[in-house]
Amino acid sequence: MWICARRRIKVHSATARRVHTAWPKAARPVRLSALYSPTLSADATSAADSIESLKLLLRGGYVRQTASGSYTYLPLGMRMIDKIRGIIDEEMQAIGASCIEMPQLLGSALWHKTGRMDAMGSELFRLRDRRGAEMILAPTHEEEVTRLIGSEIDSAKCLPVRVYQIGRKFRDEPRPRAGLLRTKEFLMKDLYTFDSDADAAKASYADVGRAYSNIFNRVFDWQHLGESATVWRAAEADTGAMGGTFSHEYHVEDPIGEDTVLSCSACAYSANTECATSKAQPAQHFQVQLHQRADASSLYALVMPKSAVLHPLAMARFGLVSWNGEGRADKLRVLVDSSCALPDTTLRTIVQDGIANRVTDVPAISTIQQDTQLCAAQAGDPCSECPDGALEAHRAIEVGHTFLLGTRYSTALGYGVGSGAQRVPLQMGCYGIGVTRVLGALAQHAARMYTKQNTNAQRKRAGFVWPLAVAPFRALVLPSPPHTPEKMHAANTLCALLDNGTAPRWCTSSGPLHLHVPHYDIALDDRSCLSFGARIFDADLVGYPLVFILGKHWEKTGEVEVRMAGGTTRYAHIEGVSP
Amino acid sequence: MWICARRRIKVHSATARRVHTAWPKAARPVRLSALYSPTLSADATSAADSIESLKLLLRGGYVRQTASGSYTYLPLGMRMIDKIRGIIDEEMQAIGASCIEMPQLLGSALWHKTGRMDAMGSELFRLRDRRGAEMILAPTHEEEVTRLIGSEIDSAKCLPVRVYQIGRKFRDEPRPRAGLLRTKEFLMKDLYTFDSDADAAKASYADVGRAYSNIFNRVFDWQHLGESATVWRAAEADTGAMGGTFSHEYHVEDPIGEDTVLSCSACAYSANTECATSKAQPAQHFQVQLHQRADASSLYALVMPKSAVLHPLAMARFGLVSWNGEGRADKLRVLVDSSCALPDTTLRTIVQDGIANRVTDVPAISTIQQDTQLCAAQAGDPCSECPDGALEAHRAIEVGHTFLLGTRYSTALGYGVGSGAQRVPLQMGCYGIGVTRVLGALAQHAARMYTKQNTNAQRKRAGFVWPLAVAPFRALVLPSPPHTPEKMHAANTLCALLDNGTAPRWCTSSGPLHLHVPHYDIALDDRSCLSFGARIFDADLVGYPLVFILGKHWEKTGEVEVRMAGGTTRYAHIEGVSP
Repeated sequence: MWICARRRIKVHSATARRVHTAWPKAARPVRLSALYSPTLSADATSAADSIESLKLLLRGGYVRQTASGSYTYLPLGMRMIDKIRGIIDEEMQAIGASCIEMPQLLGSALWHKTGRMDAMGSELFRLRDRRGAEMILAPTHEEEVTRLIGSEIDSAKCLPVRVYQIGRKFRDEPRPRAGLLRTKEFLMKDLYTFDSDADAAKASYADVGRAYSNIFNRVFDWQHLGESATVWRAAEADTGAMGGTFSHEYHVEDPIGEDTVLSCSACAYSANTECATSKAQPAQHFQVQLHQRADASSLYALVMPKSAVLHPLAMARFGLVSWNGEGRADKLRVLVDSSCALPDTTLRTIVQDGIANRVTDVPAISTIQQDTQLCAAQAGDPCSECPDGALEAHRAIEVGHTFLLGTRYSTALGYGVGSGAQRVPLQMGCYGIGVTRVLGALAQHAARMYTKQNTNAQRKRAGFVWPLAVAPFRALVLPSPPHTPEKMHAANTLCALLDNGTAPRWCTSSGPLHLHVPHYDIALDDRSCLSFGARIFDADLVGYPLVFILGKHWEKTGEVEVRMAGGTTRYAHIEGVSP
Repeated sequence: MWICARRRIKVHSATARRVHTAWPKAARPVRLSALYSPTLSADATSAADSIESLKLLLRGGYVRQTASGSYTYLPLGMRMIDKIRGIIDEEMQAIGASCIEMPQLLGSALWHKTGRMDAMGSELFRLRDRRGAEMILAPTHEEEVTRLIGSEIDSAKCLPVRVYQIGRKFRDEPRPRAGLLRTKEFLMKDLYTFDSDADAAKASYADVGRAYSNIFNRVFDWQHLGESATVWRAAEADTGAMGGTFSHEYHVEDPIGEDTVLSCSACAYSANTECATSKAQPAQHFQVQLHQRADASSLYALVMPKSAVLHPLAMARFGLVSWNGEGRADKLRVLVDSSCALPDTTLRTIVQDGIANRVTDVPAISTIQQDTQLCAAQAGDPCSECPDGALEAHRAIEVGHTFLLGTRYSTALGYGVGSGAQRVPLQMGCYGIGVTRVLGALAQHAARMYTKQNTNAQRKRAGFVWPLAVAPFRALVLPSPPHTPEKMHAANTLCALLDNGTAPRWCTSSGPLHLHVPHYDIALDDRSCLSFGARIFDADLVGYPLVFILGKHWEKTGEVEVRMAGGTTRYAHIEGVSP
């Protein structure tokens, strides 16, 4: 309300207060008769939906599949996505990041300059506009944002700049799978940081790490059920095609995940198998692998412990490809893993023996390079970061990925700060969170949590137990039929009581019950087209953390039945809510 | 805060309350030092940006152009878009519409079925995925939503269903122009209604009309400046390629608009020139136009008043194309506009005379059809809906378009309710609002409003005067340099006072001043890299409705300078905010 003294124009307060909300606070509670939330029976989901949590998302009316790797988000799914977004927005803005939106359909010129038009290969959706200009559907926005910020910032005084967006991204997945986890079109948060030197960029990287920690702690939070275990972890990761100096993945442990993470049993060390390291243990038995340079100029013999696996990055580090078994190299170079510390003479014998049957005309050994890291870390290996720990392997869903990019993009596109000899390229970082993947990972845990909480096998029910911060609604008020005016009045009074922020201590036979549910988060099941039983079943499937039932017990005793996600049921006398 | 009596687990209230907001209420106020909002000088915008409001959006740091017809929205633009979205969300949900999100990348199969793959022509962005499957970037979602709802609803009991989304749409515009008004990628709200019969569908159409009225009244609201004129209007429109039975466009009057609307000076009648009608006035002088059927089987002579223009839809109604001047038709049919009521014999003479010089071998007149509507309505014509009004022409920006679709899509795709002989196709409506176009139209008016409010030519400034409901911020607190701890403390105290919802009546020399600005809507200009003058200039350019200056006047007298969008400046003593 803004009243200007002289003019006395009153702007109606409804308008003044209702900004910035994804849905109206005025529409309290949300009536299920007006919310499109179709639930499905167990047999309505196809056998192809092999993932239990996806089946439940379909059955609960959260999502629908539109094509392979493509989903429509229904109102309940949208509410969860909006809550996840809300948490991300808060934590991003807490570290001074501003929200922007860049186009999804981009010209290809900048991508040619950075070399990613080729590097992204067939994962990139490409098209041509009516004039024949080559365009792409953005899978990420490093090029675009580098130009946006780089073309306007020319002084270190204006840095740091941190901008992020939450929007659709596209990737031409060869094998869309696992429901929301690997899709052709997905919702992503992408943050970009710009600093004037490497130290400042590292400080930005650390700030984002703390923000990510807050985000995932808030999103994956089942504390209200007494669950204190953290389900996510940050792991060292490979920078891959994105480039840059270092990188972390954020994972949620899950058997359907596509990543394998090795984590220490004793310390906080965690890394993707792609780049995990372990403490070298002296080896007793050895193997020799043959590789070559791409141009076949040199043959390489790699000496590793017998049971070890070559590290996926080792080949790249030395510029090697598999030996083609042909031709004759002049030189034979020997690379020795740090776990195989041996005198050069012994190594020569091992190499000669190891390749004697494979190479007809063995070249002379030209160099021996010991103490390199050739082996991938494996479960059971001793941790490289602490004295006592051993590495354990977990399957995990990658929900976030951060990269300290350095000057990879600013150099390629020519953007920097300062002038003349003082001019330096912008130092960048980029940071993603897969918003729809977070929803998929949440669903996996929430379905397992349901099973854990509902051990009574006779119920034969299924559903979700969501974290409070992201549940589509905090509470459901469910009056049994018939929906008499008196009962609906009581139901509305209950909604208002829950809503007003000063809910009294309600007395139950087992002690006081303190509840406060924000008003915009209450659903009222006023549907008359469904049976009472079907609506109770729906409530379980959808997974409301609190369900208030005005049924037979209420009619007889005046007590409201309160079902809590943890499995507890309480009966409460609530003033003003009596039959 | 939710405290469970038995477990005594307290969920921290910050998490509990902060859902559903586009940005954090906790971050109060927003500090401009951490908001990416680069303003540009007048000469930094290119001469090609011929539209004044676009120049101002660029200069004020609202948007940046990324390519022809493609824009990035910067934080200030995003805040406005989020506010417009918030209003749309509220009004959609007030009529029982649920928010969903469908994919933007769609398969082409359904579009082939409805015939729109061909009908949309080169406006549709087309591409192929890695398997060669034909895909499109959705310009709209009738096909997809018809399948989504149609495949799950099979009983009239489950209707009505109303679902909407707010997301990116794509159109391969041949001539992107006018800044945000005609772009290749834009933000649109699209609502779809499903009913079981035509009457219910009409009721839905009427509900949406009222919701649209609320939306545009709230968005285009300069009442705080004493402006009561409505800048938008609903006009009857052609259904075009979308199909259906009737249609309305929602326009904002503006000289840069691409549509021309004819509106009655006396009644509420308004229609796009494409379909406007006017009262027939008896004509004195006549013209004869020649047309033919596509197969040249019949020649048509159209008799109209001399000065009249053929209605764009008349040709389509009679299945005519322009006469190719060749061949010889056996029959000559005569169509006579209702303004040319004449005896058949007179008409025969007029037609023979009118075409004598153009057709060598004039066929005999086979039929004469009088009282048809052939003429387009023109400015100055008498209104067809009321006795006294005359039509006036306005250039206008189309910001919304609604269609009563009938069964155009449900029949083509085979979706209906009921079974056997009782089965009927779904009755649909579709309803768009161009969200980024609304921003463009707002900018046009807000720039003109600034000029109107700032008649003092010597100031030579430019900027926006936004409606309160959609301004990026409601208020700015601007301390002059140096930013001493005392001054920043006073600035923060002022923000807190504005924020707490119980702002006192501040006394000024000219009477009390009542202000309430929601806390999440205050910006604090704490930038030290810019001069005081540059920041004052920025404040004008961006267009904060209220600016509180802690400058020299405040240092001397303790009074805060309050600049209001209307041009008024007041000085107020505010307790706790003194030097």
